[in-house]
Amino acid sequence: MSALLATLPGHYYTSGDLFAAEQANIFESRWFCTVRSADLAEPGRFRKVQVGRESVLLVRGRDGLLRAFLNVCRHRGAQLCTESEGQVRRSLRCPYHSWTYGLDGRLMAAPNIGTLTDDAGSPIDRQRYGLVPVALTEWLGYAWVCLADVPPPFEDVVAEATATLGDADAINRYGIGGLDVGHRVVYEVAANWKLIVENFMECYHCSSIHPELVGVLPEFTKGVAAQANVGRGAEFGSQVQGFTVDGAAGFGRLPGLTEDQDRRYYAITVKPTVFVNLVPDHVIFHRMYPLAADRTVVECDWLYPRDVLNSGQDMSRSVELFHRVNEQDFAACERTQPAMSSRAYRNGGVLVPAEHHLAVFHEWVLSRLAAAV
Amino acid sequence: MSALLATLPGHYYTSGDLFAAEQANIFESRWFCTVRSADLAEPGRFRKVQVGRESVLLVRGRDGLLRAFLNVCRHRGAQLCTESEGQVRRSLRCPYHSWTYGLDGRLMAAPNIGTLTDDAGSPIDRQRYGLVPVALTEWLGYAWVCLADVPPPFEDVVAEATATLGDADAINRYGIGGLDVGHRVVYEVAANWKLIVENFMECYHCSSIHPELVGVLPEFTKGVAAQANVGRGAEFGSQVQGFTVDGAAGFGRLPGLTEDQDRRYYAITVKPTVFVNLVPDHVIFHRMYPLAADRTVVECDWLYPRDVLNSGQDMSRSVELFHRVNEQDFAACERTQPAMSSRAYRNGGVLVPAEHHLAVFHEWVLSRLAAAV
Amino acid sequence: MSALLATLPGHYYTSGDLFAAEQANIFESRWFCTVRSADLAEPGRFRKVQVGRESVLLVRGRDGLLRAFLNVCRHRGAQLCTESEGQVRRSLRCPYHSWTYGLDGRLMAAPNIGTLTDDAGSPIDRQRYGLVPVALTEWLGYAWVCLADVPPPFEDVVAEATATLGDADAINRYGIGGLDVGHRVVYEVAANWKLIVENFMECYHCSSIHPELVGVLPEFTKGVAAQANVGRGAEFGSQVQGFTVDGAAGFGRLPGLTEDQDRRYYAITVKPTVFVNLVPDHVIFHRMYPLAADRTVVECDWLYPRDVLNSGQDMSRSVELFHRVNEQDFAACERTQPAMSSRAYRNGGVLVPAEHHLAVFHEWVLSRLAAAV
Repeated sequence: MSALLATLPGHYYTSGDLFAAEQANIFESRWFCTVRSADLAEPGRFRKVQVGRESVLLVRGRDGLLRAFLNVCRHRGAQLCTESEGQVRRSLRCPYHSWTYGLDGRLMAAPNIGTLTDDAGSPIDRQRYGLVPVALTEWLGYAWVCLADVPPPFEDVVAEATATLGDADAINRYGIGGLDVGHRVVYEVAANWKLIVENFMECYHCSSIHPELVGVLPEFTKGVAAQANVGRGAEFGSQVQGFTVDGAAGFGRLPGLTEDQDRRYYAITVKPTVFVNLVPDHVIFHRMYPLAADRTVVECDWLYPRDVLNSGQDMSRSVELFHRVNEQDFAACERTQPAMSSRAYRNGGVLVPAEHHLAVFHEWVLSRLAAAV
Repeated sequence: MSALLATLPGHYYTSGDLFAAEQANIFESRWFCTVRSADLAEPGRFRKVQVGRESVLLVRGRDGLLRAFLNVCRHRGAQLCTESEGQVRRSLRCPYHSWTYGLDGRLMAAPNIGTLTDDAGSPIDRQRYGLVPVALTEWLGYAWVCLADVPPPFEDVVAEATATLGDADAINRYGIGGLDVGHRVVYEVAANWKLIVENFMECYHCSSIHPELVGVLPEFTKGVAAQANVGRGAEFGSQVQGFTVDGAAGFGRLPGLTEDQDRRYYAITVKPTVFVNLVPDHVIFHRMYPLAADRTVVECDWLYPRDVLNSGQDMSRSVELFHRVNEQDFAACERTQPAMSSRAYRNGGVLVPAEHHLAVFHEWVLSRLAAAV
Repeated sequence: MSALLATLPGHYYTSGDLFAAEQANIFESRWFCTVRSADLAEPGRFRKVQVGRESVLLVRGRDGLLRAFLNVCRHRGAQLCTESEGQVRRSLRCPYHSWTYGLDGRLMAAPNIGTLTDDAGSPIDRQRYGLVPVALTEWLGYAWVCLADVPPPFEDVVAEATATLGDADAINRYGIGGLDVGHRVVYEVAANWKLIVENFMECYHCSSIHPELVGVLPEFTKGVAAQANVGRGAEFGSQVQGFTVDGAAGFGRLPGLTEDQDRRYYAITVKPTVFVNLVPDHVIFHRMYPLAADRTVVECDWLYPRDVLNSGQDMSRSVELFHRVNEQDFAACERTQPAMSSRAYRNGGVLVPAEHHLAVFHEWVLSRLAAAV
């Protein structure tokens, strides 16, 4: 009766009920990566993002702080912002009845506010009827929010995500927070978010679908993923000059890197929805927005030092490598999604030894769903 | 712990189950306004309307009576009419197997009807296999139908709807049944029908979104609705000549009106789906067709005396005022709908004093749903 | 209290839950007709079909045998084939991780297959990780598959379907397996599959909607279906020369037919999803693919002897007759579907005596659903 290690059963990838449970217990309960902080540099600049089932508004205050709120007026519930991004001067005004909030969320004004009293006849509490705040922290230049009443410690997220790099300081040497977005692509993927995570975590598929990536990282032909073993990464081929679609030279090494971070590719997964790819001259950063059991949006940023971007050099071969990897990966995930509802996958598929670390991800998902009670 | 009065919790505006309960216990159990009787003036003229989950056929008989039936052949269930409106001569013939019904619903003919016997061998009962009748009454020139086995007294609907006019005879003086449709617009609104009712009932939003309306009715800047107090309505501004988009003169006063009905706007809500707006020279009549928890069709008629319509005068400024109000209101409702599923609205929003009469509507909805058992 | 015989209640035609039960207990449990075998004549030729909720792959082996498999890789579940049809040389290779299967389903190769061991450390069992086979048999030139663990005897399907022909050998004389597809049309029908079966089984509607068919088979004006009585069929009108849209001559009589099969139309229903229409010079063969409670795809083949097809004669009048019948029937079914959710059809409609044999089909459906328990 011995057999290969099993994956999650197929219905974990198709059930609307399980996806709703993931919304509640994963995306709305863990730290969720939203916007690049620098995209909201000036006071009053805002962006609307979907976090689980909630519309969340991120806005830069006049005090320079970035804050997050539920995008809902406290009066009769109109959405404060319907545009995906924009800029206001000093306040957020609901267009329905003109309730007006400061950039810190406090209720500043409302028509006849002087006459508004609670059921005890007292003037209304402007704090109580302020916008509902959402916890926010910044890391790697991105704003991470958490809808839980008691957010889990963010340090645990960092520690767990960076463990495979071997060295707690390794990721800091890339200086990701100081890089600029050189290119951004948004992909719509007709697949469950967990298929995308699993695909990112293993490299047994690399030789089948990623000819360009394997050209740069020839050891990927062996099928062992960069994040399968602690501190390893993957080494550039001896003839390869840079992490580009044809192995041609890229750009200068990021200033803080150590010698053993040169000519190597590292990758980490920040559960639930972020992948970070580290190469000597840039960083590729993926954020997922799971929208349904079979639909996920992936936003991918290519991050470079500002002086490289300002130099006028041709970025196309640098960007093209991972853009192709993305398209190849998402096509594979979309091909897999329909089979998740087959009786052939009722008890799941199997993991080969090079994929055994995926079981850790599966256990994490199961534990999060079990935590729901 | 004192707080502002709460609205209904958000899931009342999004739940498919609650909407199904509303279909059963409100739209299919109360009097529901369907067509303008005059639209079906000639014998054989018919129109198909959606009442809750049912397709209902209204048809003018050769005896001049308007009748309503379920739009379903009693034999194998084909829809008798698939067109939204039309005209037949003397009968409604199902095109599938040619069962043929009189305009009074009686089964007139069927292929081999002479050989059709029931399971006791008797000839079939043509009344029993006639079209399923639906109760119908006429008021204000419209046909109101009720799918309940025992329809509630229509007088109660009239009394409740007109109570805020103060005077039981006030609405009759407008002679609405004798007016003609001068203009009709059908709006598709991506919002729950109750948001549209609430929006119509209050005027706290008027100064925020209705500049033209407030121009004509300046007291609306105070946020007090015309139907918040008995017999008040709202007075035209002193410089205003008529109920038009720019306050220019409208048409002559409707013949039956009293002096205190001149230069005033009155409004009533006929629950569940009708709004009537009364001004000295015309009437604006809204009918809603709730199609889903988040989708409602609103049909709006502008009604004028026939001689005004025949006079060739320009109607555009008269029509434009409420057309803009409609577009402004429905945009606000559509902006509110998405937030109904937010945790910020889990226990609802709040009502300011000028909106307190909305709570009566909320109680009515809850009592109807509770009546369902 | 006596009444006409009732049909199934309306919710049998609209409920998603009942449709799911039909998927499990009918389409995925009985023999289901898929492809014309001759469409997959050469080794490596494959076609993907939907059987209930499963994607099934039919492929001709190098040994000449036609086989069926679930279209799912045993490793991580990618669909082996996403095209609807095609041809491979000697194997089916999953493009995600390159697991490769023989045309007989056996796992032939996988990257690092030598190192893949089960949890007891033994080399993996290539049979165990082969494609999941699906039972297949051939009849009338079509491949019938069954997803049940223990398929019911196919002889029972044949015996029940052909019983109304009166003579067990009658269908064989048409030599259907040896005919060629002269024309094929795929219809998308917005109706429940059972409405399509019921429509096919009765002829009470023929005089209402099938003028061309009644022109060729004038006894159909009486409303008695060809399959209502054993061995009867329906006779061509005396002036009719052939089974064509205008009664003009068709082609020569099929070689094996007896005299009493000439100038007659016969029809059988092979439950759940096949109709076969037999006329002296050709055969019209319908296969249904039920996709949802209110959506069914019907594929219709017109089958002729090869020499007729090769002769260059004009097929259009021969094909046009049943193409019109199909369009007329499917329009009637689509008109009926919406009324299935009406309260008027809550307990079903009624069957006239000429439709009483439909009750046998209804009982069969109920017994299949009850068998599910």
